[in-house]
Amino acid sequence: MFRNQYDNDISTWSPQGRLHQIEYALEAVKQGSASVGLRSNTHVVLLALKRSSGELASHQQKLFRIDSHMGIAIAGLVSDARVLSNFMRTECMKSKMMYDRPMPGSRLVSLIGDKAQINTQNYGRRPYGVGLLVGSYDEDTGPHLYECLPNANCLEYFAISIGAKSQSAKTYLEKFAKDFGEIDVDALIMHGLHALRETLQQDKELNINNCSIGVVGKGQDWHLIEGDRLKAYLDQLEAGAAPAASAEDLPQGEAMDTE
Amino acid sequence: MFRNQYDNDISTWSPQGRLHQIEYALEAVKQGSASVGLRSNTHVVLLALKRSSGELASHQQKLFRIDSHMGIAIAGLVSDARVLSNFMRTECMKSKMMYDRPMPGSRLVSLIGDKAQINTQNYGRRPYGVGLLVGSYDEDTGPHLYECLPNANCLEYFAISIGAKSQSAKTYLEKFAKDFGEIDVDALIMHGLHALRETLQQDKELNINNCSIGVVGKGQDWHLIEGDRLKAYLDQLEAGAAPAASAEDLPQGEAMDTE
Amino acid sequence: MFRNQYDNDISTWSPQGRLHQIEYALEAVKQGSASVGLRSNTHVVLLALKRSSGELASHQQKLFRIDSHMGIAIAGLVSDARVLSNFMRTECMKSKMMYDRPMPGSRLVSLIGDKAQINTQNYGRRPYGVGLLVGSYDEDTGPHLYECLPNANCLEYFAISIGAKSQSAKTYLEKFAKDFGEIDVDALIMHGLHALRETLQQDKELNINNCSIGVVGKGQDWHLIEGDRLKAYLDQLEAGAAPAASAEDLPQGEAMDTE
Amino acid sequence: MFRNQYDNDISTWSPQGRLHQIEYALEAVKQGSASVGLRSNTHVVLLALKRSSGELASHQQKLFRIDSHMGIAIAGLVSDARVLSNFMRTECMKSKMMYDRPMPGSRLVSLIGDKAQINTQNYGRRPYGVGLLVGSYDEDTGPHLYECLPNANCLEYFAISIGAKSQSAKTYLEKFAKDFGEIDVDALIMHGLHALRETLQQDKELNINNCSIGVVGKGQDWHLIEGDRLKAYLDQLEAGAAPAASAEDLPQGEAMDTE
Amino acid sequence: MFRNQYDNDISTWSPQGRLHQIEYALEAVKQGSASVGLRSNTHVVLLALKRSSGELASHQQKLFRIDSHMGIAIAGLVSDARVLSNFMRTECMKSKMMYDRPMPGSRLVSLIGDKAQINTQNYGRRPYGVGLLVGSYDEDTGPHLYECLPNANCLEYFAISIGAKSQSAKTYLEKFAKDFGEIDVDALIMHGLHALRETLQQDKELNINNCSIGVVGKGQDWHLIEGDRLKAYLDQLEAGAAPAASAEDLPQGEAMDTE
Amino acid sequence: MFRNQYDNDISTWSPQGRLHQIEYALEAVKQGSASVGLRSNTHVVLLALKRSSGELASHQQKLFRIDSHMGIAIAGLVSDARVLSNFMRTECMKSKMMYDRPMPGSRLVSLIGDKAQINTQNYGRRPYGVGLLVGSYDEDTGPHLYECLPNANCLEYFAISIGAKSQSAKTYLEKFAKDFGEIDVDALIMHGLHALRETLQQDKELNINNCSIGVVGKGQDWHLIEGDRLKAYLDQLEAGAAPAASAEDLPQGEAMDTE
Amino acid sequence: MFRNQYDNDISTWSPQGRLHQIEYALEAVKQGSASVGLRSNTHVVLLALKRSSGELASHQQKLFRIDSHMGIAIAGLVSDARVLSNFMRTECMKSKMMYDRPMPGSRLVSLIGDKAQINTQNYGRRPYGVGLLVGSYDEDTGPHLYECLPNANCLEYFAISIGAKSQSAKTYLEKFAKDFGEIDVDALIMHGLHALRETLQQDKELNINNCSIGVVGKGQDWHLIEGDRLKAYLDQLEAGAAPAASAEDLPQGEAMDTE
Repeated sequence: MFRNQYDNDISTWSPQGRLHQIEYALEAVKQGSASVGLRSNTHVVLLALKRSSGELASHQQKLFRIDSHMGIAIAGLVSDARVLSNFMRTECMKSKMMYDRPMPGSRLVSLIGDKAQINTQNYGRRPYGVGLLVGSYDEDTGPHLYECLPNANCLEYFAISIGAKSQSAKTYLEKFAKDFGEIDVDALIMHGLHALRETLQQDKELNINNCSIGVVGKGQDWHLIEGDRLKAYLDQLEAGAAPAASAEDLPQGEAMDTE
Repeated sequence: MFRNQYDNDISTWSPQGRLHQIEYALEAVKQGSASVGLRSNTHVVLLALKRSSGELASHQQKLFRIDSHMGIAIAGLVSDARVLSNFMRTECMKSKMMYDRPMPGSRLVSLIGDKAQINTQNYGRRPYGVGLLVGSYDEDTGPHLYECLPNANCLEYFAISIGAKSQSAKTYLEKFAKDFGEIDVDALIMHGLHALRETLQQDKELNINNCSIGVVGKGQDWHLIEGDRLKAYLDQLEAGAAPAASAEDLPQGEAMDTE
Repeated sequence: MFRNQYDNDISTWSPQGRLHQIEYALEAVKQGSASVGLRSNTHVVLLALKRSSGELASHQQKLFRIDSHMGIAIAGLVSDARVLSNFMRTECMKSKMMYDRPMPGSRLVSLIGDKAQINTQNYGRRPYGVGLLVGSYDEDTGPHLYECLPNANCLEYFAISIGAKSQSAKTYLEKFAKDFGEIDVDALIMHGLHALRETLQQDKELNINNCSIGVVGKGQDWHLIEGDRLKAYLDQLEAGAAPAASAEDLPQGEAMDTE
Repeated sequence: MFRNQYDNDISTWSPQGRLHQIEYALEAVKQGSASVGLRSNTHVVLLALKRSSGELASHQQKLFRIDSHMGIAIAGLVSDARVLSNFMRTECMKSKMMYDRPMPGSRLVSLIGDKAQINTQNYGRRPYGVGLLVGSYDEDTGPHLYECLPNANCLEYFAISIGAKSQSAKTYLEKFAKDFGEIDVDALIMHGLHALRETLQQDKELNINNCSIGVVGKGQDWHLIEGDRLKAYLDQLEAGAAPAASAEDLPQGEAMDTE
Repeated sequence: MFRNQYDNDISTWSPQGRLHQIEYALEAVKQGSASVGLRSNTHVVLLALKRSSGELASHQQKLFRIDSHMGIAIAGLVSDARVLSNFMRTECMKSKMMYDRPMPGSRLVSLIGDKAQINTQNYGRRPYGVGLLVGSYDEDTGPHLYECLPNANCLEYFAISIGAKSQSAKTYLEKFAKDFGEIDVDALIMHGLHALRETLQQDKELNINNCSIGVVGKGQDWHLIEGDRLKAYLDQLEAGAAPAASAEDLPQGEAMDTE
Repeated sequence: MFRNQYDNDISTWSPQGRLHQIEYALEAVKQGSASVGLRSNTHVVLLALKRSSGELASHQQKLFRIDSHMGIAIAGLVSDARVLSNFMRTECMKSKMMYDRPMPGSRLVSLIGDKAQINTQNYGRRPYGVGLLVGSYDEDTGPHLYECLPNANCLEYFAISIGAKSQSAKTYLEKFAKDFGEIDVDALIMHGLHALRETLQQDKELNINNCSIGVVGKGQDWHLIEGDRLKAYLDQLEAGAAPAASAEDLPQGEAMDTE
Repeated sequence: MFRNQYDNDISTWSPQGRLHQIEYALEAVKQGSASVGLRSNTHVVLLALKRSSGELASHQQKLFRIDSHMGIAIAGLVSDARVLSNFMRTECMKSKMMYDRPMPGSRLVSLIGDKAQINTQNYGRRPYGVGLLVGSYDEDTGPHLYECLPNANCLEYFAISIGAKSQSAKTYLEKFAKDFGEIDVDALIMHGLHALRETLQQDKELNINNCSIGVVGKGQDWHLIEGDRLKAYLDQLEAGAAPAASAEDLPQGEAMDTE
């Protein structure tokens, strides 16, 4: 009962110094289906669980291309994600036109934070209800993986997961994260699939419909892995290839030309 | 009781990370009379149940022409639908004038999503109270069927239904959807009528007054099927032509020149 | 009790997906004295019951001329009606000046709908509290009869009634509506008077003071029927001329030059 | 209790389709001291009861000149009346400057209605708390008497009264109104004084201090009747000159040059 | 309890047709220390009781010069009075610059009324919490005394008092007001002092610190009476010079050159 | 309970004609540490008690320079004081640039009053939470001491104190104020220290850290008294130099060159 | 219960003259992980405790570079800190461009105070939820250490700590602060680490991941101390080097070239 007195306005502090509306918006992210991000020294891989709106629909889109060197995975309100991804695309285009260079990931993430912060301070707005994983690669600074949340916090990660049951994925990632730096992109994808599988409900399995993979990295523009290529990874996952404790132990599937 | 503390403002998150006003607006769609959409590889068919405002009125209009290559079916607040359809027509005209080409369906649906999202974030607005099925066809990308909802989500479907008792129609559509790709437009219409019939109240029947059909597809601009042609389909429906499990089994009615 | 939580703001959805303020505004229409509209293939007749503000005042005006080819009858808040009729007159003048042609009824009705919709979506506004019957005639499309309600719905009718006890008038109209198409304007007026009489309170009678008739149609600009001519119709009504089941049976009163 | 849920906002409909704030503003008019208006075929007479603010003040002004051909009597909030009368004077001046003709009474009354309607629809405004009787005369259309109320309704009357105990005055006026058309201005004034006397409290009498009379009509610009001339009418009233049932019977006081 | 439902918003009518916030602002005037105004045929005298903010401060200013021909006395919120007196001074300067003549008192009072009315109709404003007595003199229309209240009412008076215990002063003034017209300015001042003394608390006396007198009139610009001259009047008051029932009986103090 | 219904909005009058928010803001001044001001015929001295934010911080600044001829002492919200002092400095600079003369103290104080009044009348603002003592000196009008409070009242004083326990200081000042006119600046400072000491909590003493003194006057620009000079005064205070009842009795400390 | 009536609006005073929303925002600072600042006569050192968002993320950034001569440490909402640090960087750039000199710390701190004050007075805003320690150095005025809080107060300190358990750090700092003036930067850093360690939870230790140090001072631009250099300080801390009561006693670690 007490809590409710401070929680319906973004511009009202609770006596404990909290802004409840921001915390509730973070809940919206936790209700979205999970997304996972991992980074090696050369690549960023984003994976997402797609919820079907029934048999009749294509699955919901969870990965979005922002620019040739950048993509995002989302968890939460899809319509808010579209607003933010439109904003990101526009900024990337402006960067190209005005400075003739790709927008650095760190700069774009900072702009998102600024945009989101405004919604946490002004009466009559609401915080965005979506979390973003941003993967980018450029020659100068290499691969980067960021998480942007409704509280306007944007942090860089080696590996991270957001959305429903993302804690299970994080537990997996923390176990193997020390290996991610040096492994190749296939191994990185396999780790990502293992982590994503942890977020599934009891009796569900990953398949080519409910699972999206996006990759960006050295020599590779942002692209999705779909169809047969996706199936190959999933088969490997199903084949019981328990991830080895370190990358060296990973069974190297047949080399896939991902460039 | 608890729920009510968060549900009267579009810009207030509930502690569970939900925006109740959006969910209530989705209820408004569920109260509208049903609309059904189906897609083959060459055509999109939209069907709608029209409620009569009494014997004295023409039935309510449920299908609207947006452009020569695009039409919509609605469920929910008619006045909100008019606002959105005006918006869509204007955008289509702008596309023709500025780029000399028809507005792609996916682009227009994205604009509707953006427009609807604004109403889900700003204080003092309300989400639109109408759902749209958008059918479009162009030579490059073929036929498309989209659903746009008050939560600003716009998804592509093979077949879908919105409005009152739309779940019954969906159940029918899911059963036969695998066949829709290759069947001709007559068979697609018959499937649509079967699905629409599922949404009727116990003692009602489809007739030329309470039923609208719109078609767009390869070689066919958006047009309504009315009068004798509509009656022919309805007669066929009443003749007990239970839809075959697959399109091949469909009794091919006399060929109708739909071009 | 429960209902009240959602009903005092136009921009708040109830959990059932309803906008209560719109429904309450519709109540304002139901409290206005009744208006009746009928359409033959050549004419539109609008009739209205005028409430007296006491013996000292002229009766309240219920019929308004919009343009030479168009008039309206109202039920509900007179001051809101004036705002809307001013708007309609201005639009008609603009049409004449800019396009040198009379504003089509369907177009004007659509503009009213757009104007009324705005008041159903924006915080701090209220829906209009008046219903309109719009009768128009032009050479190209013939006579039209529309009903515009506070919910921004505008529908075309063959015959319709709004306001207090309008259901009784509708019952009459539904009984005879199938005949209206081919009958002459005198017979149409007599049917209208019969319908309007149904909305009277128990011990009241129609007379030249409490009853207004407006006609527009083929070869006839919008004009009111008043004085002796109105009295002639009322005498015929009082003479017990029960409306025949079909127009052919109608006693043809002495021909009145209505042109 | 129930009523209160809808009555504190001008832009909120009650479930019964009423706008309570408008009705409450009408109460403010009923609390003002009474004003009476009457119209013959040639003149309009406005009379008003003035409340004293104590012995030290001149009595409150209740009649206002708008233009040479127009005056008003008020009941309710004096400060709101001043705003409206300023508005009326400005409009009359504009009419003279732009069209070189006096503002027609019907036109001005319509403008007041529009101005008042705005205050009945927009959040954060309140309806005006004053009622107006408007008397005007022009050569083309003769004398006119209008009543303008906070609900933005403006009606034409033969005779009318507003303010405290105005019902008693109306009862008198209804009894004799049929005679007003043909009587001269003196007789009209006497009828007005009889009506106004009906609104007095038990032990009060009309006198030259608490009673105002304004006249406009054929050959007479708007002017007040004051001092000796007013006294002459009051003496005649006190002399027991019960108004005859019809004007012919009226004792003709000595002819007064009212031109 | 009931009253409170309508009394916290200036733009909300109570069911009785009252605006409680205006009435509460009038209370603020009643709490200010009293001011008194009197008018002869040639002069206006304003007197005010000054409350001390303690021994260390000069007494609060209660009389303000507006122009050479005009001054005011106040009761209520001093800060609101300053806003209004600044406004009055500016208007007087504008009148001199634009029309090369002093602002007529009646015109300025009307402007104050308009300014105050705005604060009684718009949401989010509050009525001014101060009452003004305005004294002015010009050659054409002679002396004038006006009272302006938070309800935007501005009335002309022969003599008036506002503020705490002003009713006692009014009782005195009503008793002698009939004499004020012909008496000289000294006698007028003495009457004013007698009236002001009535508003004192039980054990207080008028002295040169708590009492202000301002005069404007024929041949005299607005000026304050202070120091020895004020003391002379006060001595005369203390000398028991009970005001005679009519001016002729007034003990004529030694002639004071007030020009 | 009752009080709370009117006290949370600056633009709402209580039924007693009070604006509670203004009164609450005055409480904020009473909670600030005390400031004292005194005026002789040639100088103004401001003194303030500084609260330490702990041992690590410099003490809070309580005296501010506005211009070479003017300084202020504050009690209440420091951040509000900064806004007001910035405003005062800007106005002083404008005066110098535009009129080439120092801003008169009375004029600046009037501008502060106007600025503060706006915050007492408009919805959504709050009154400033700070009281100011303003000391100024110019050749034409000599020294002036003003107090400006959140209620927008600005009064001139001979000596005054604001803030916590300021009543004790006032009691001292009232006792000796009659002497202040003719004494020299050293004696004035000693009186000020005696007064300020009255506002200390039981076991506290004035020292060079918690006490500020500012002086402006004939031949002296605004300057602070600090370090050794401040210590000399404090030593004198501690030496038990009880202030004599009149200035003549004051032990004249060694002459200090304060120019 | 009582408190809640005044605490949800920044522009509402409580009856005790408090603005609760400001106090609640101060709580947000107290919940942030601690930051510590110390100043010698030549250097300012800022230290901060970084909270990890889990093993996968880099630690949260707590120290920010503003300009070559200035840096900040924060406690509280990171997104608010970013807004303020962006503002500070922009102001520093403007200072360089317009005046060709570094922004003085005192000036920038004053601008932050002004910016923060606005959020404490205007309806619909909220106070910033972050505290800043600002360290700056310039040749003219030497090193400065400021604290800026949500209440818009900005004070200069010799040493200070904000955030969770900052009281423990303050207790340490107060004990040794008298020594800070003359010690070298290494000794200053060691004192800072001792103070920061006091804010740790029971079983935590400072390490190179959870601890940030920034330095600016004579001959040293703002720079972070990281990696091996940071480790050396931490080793020294762990080696039990209890800080001597005065700087002379401090074990001088090997000289580190900090220039």
